Amino acid sequence: MRTVDPVKHEEKRQEILVAAKRCFVRHGLRGASIAGICTEAGISPGHLYHYFESKDAILQAIVEAVLERNAEQFSQTAANSDALAALMVVSAQSKVRNDDGTNGLILEMLAEAERSPVIARLVQEHSRGMQKLLADFLRRGQTQREIDPSLDIEAAAALLVGIIDSFVLTAVHNPALDPALTTEMLRVLIARFLTVPIRTGTHD
Amino acid sequence: MRTVDPVKHEEKRQEILVAAKRCFVRHGLRGASIAGICTEAGISPGHLYHYFESKDAILQAIVEAVLERNAEQFSQTAANSDALAALMVVSAQSKVRNDDGTNGLILEMLAEAERSPVIARLVQEHSRGMQKLLADFLRRGQTQREIDPSLDIEAAAALLVGIIDSFVLTAVHNPALDPALTTEMLRVLIARFLTVPIRTGTHD
Repeated sequence: MRTVDPVKHEEKRQEILVAAKRCFVRHGLRGASIAGICTEAGISPGHLYHYFESKDAILQAIVEAVLERNAEQFSQTAANSDALAALMVVSAQSKVRNDDGTNGLILEMLAEAERSPVIARLVQEHSRGMQKLLADFLRRGQTQREIDPSLDIEAAAALLVGIIDSFVLTAVHNPALDPALTTEMLRVLIARFLTVPIRTGTHD
Repeated sequence: MRTVDPVKHEEKRQEILVAAKRCFVRHGLRGASIAGICTEAGISPGHLYHYFESKDAILQAIVEAVLERNAEQFSQTAANSDALAALMVVSAQSKVRNDDGTNGLILEMLAEAERSPVIARLVQEHSRGMQKLLADFLRRGQTQREIDPSLDIEAAAALLVGIIDSFVLTAVHNPALDPALTTEMLRVLIARFLTVPIRTGTHD
């Protein structure tokens, strides 16, 4: 048996993922083939199977990488509404600026989820992961009295996951819209949603 | 030349649209064919062309019907944040309950917009239409001091269009989520976003 250098193995794995993403964007979820991914990555199918056992496994790895990146960001962000609003604006902006076709890939996965159980599971795993990240964050903020304690954590987190995705839609809908204004509105929206409302009356 | 009874013509047109929607949901945007739509509607291709000149024309009519229904609802709603929040919750709920596959069709159109200029134009026309409806509504509300005058109307309207769509995503992501809680969070989110913030300090 050959010994495997784990650093080299991981580098090659990342190279394949980048090549595969280009194929998915170019040919769509169904159109992209293992053969095409191999050509793009410059390796043989036999070689590819050392890294990924199927097209779905590649797609899963792409989705998991997004989740890992987000988990890291959330863990480093102060648990208050302004900080989350700022973080989500940065994340939304990077999606809007994303001209490499990833937006289309995300939307195609969401659409395909209605027909393919494998894709549906991937989409749901990812959004469950994102929802958990957001829910943990909100819980931390509520404990620290930084986030409105009256909000239902799970439902609020699910809504925020949807809103992050909806920013992709905003770019598809209105390519001409000024991103500076839209992201400022997004920041206001999230900050106001999560902040304890200031009461002027004498009631609790 | 045959004379055309406008009432019967419109009835048949609506029948074809219903049959076509079933085909689009079942076979996807690309998979659905004029031949299949004719079979589903029980008419000949020659007959169909009296009503619609192409598959795209049918899709356009489906999208326009949604816009007309929304325009009617907005015109009948009081221009304040609570009323809009309530209306958007009803609209969102009807989408979440929508088990006939329309959600998948909407997502597929959004995904396909990246590749097909015809679909991109349709999607953009629809969202421009929705955005205009919302912007007019917000403008009315700001004039009546019911909606925060500091909000940028066009950007806020675009964001709200995205949020309505994102509710479809919430259902795809988390089929198990309690719709009552999610819609309540949506109501809170929109109402808080649009309401003039109450200031307790002495500054303006």
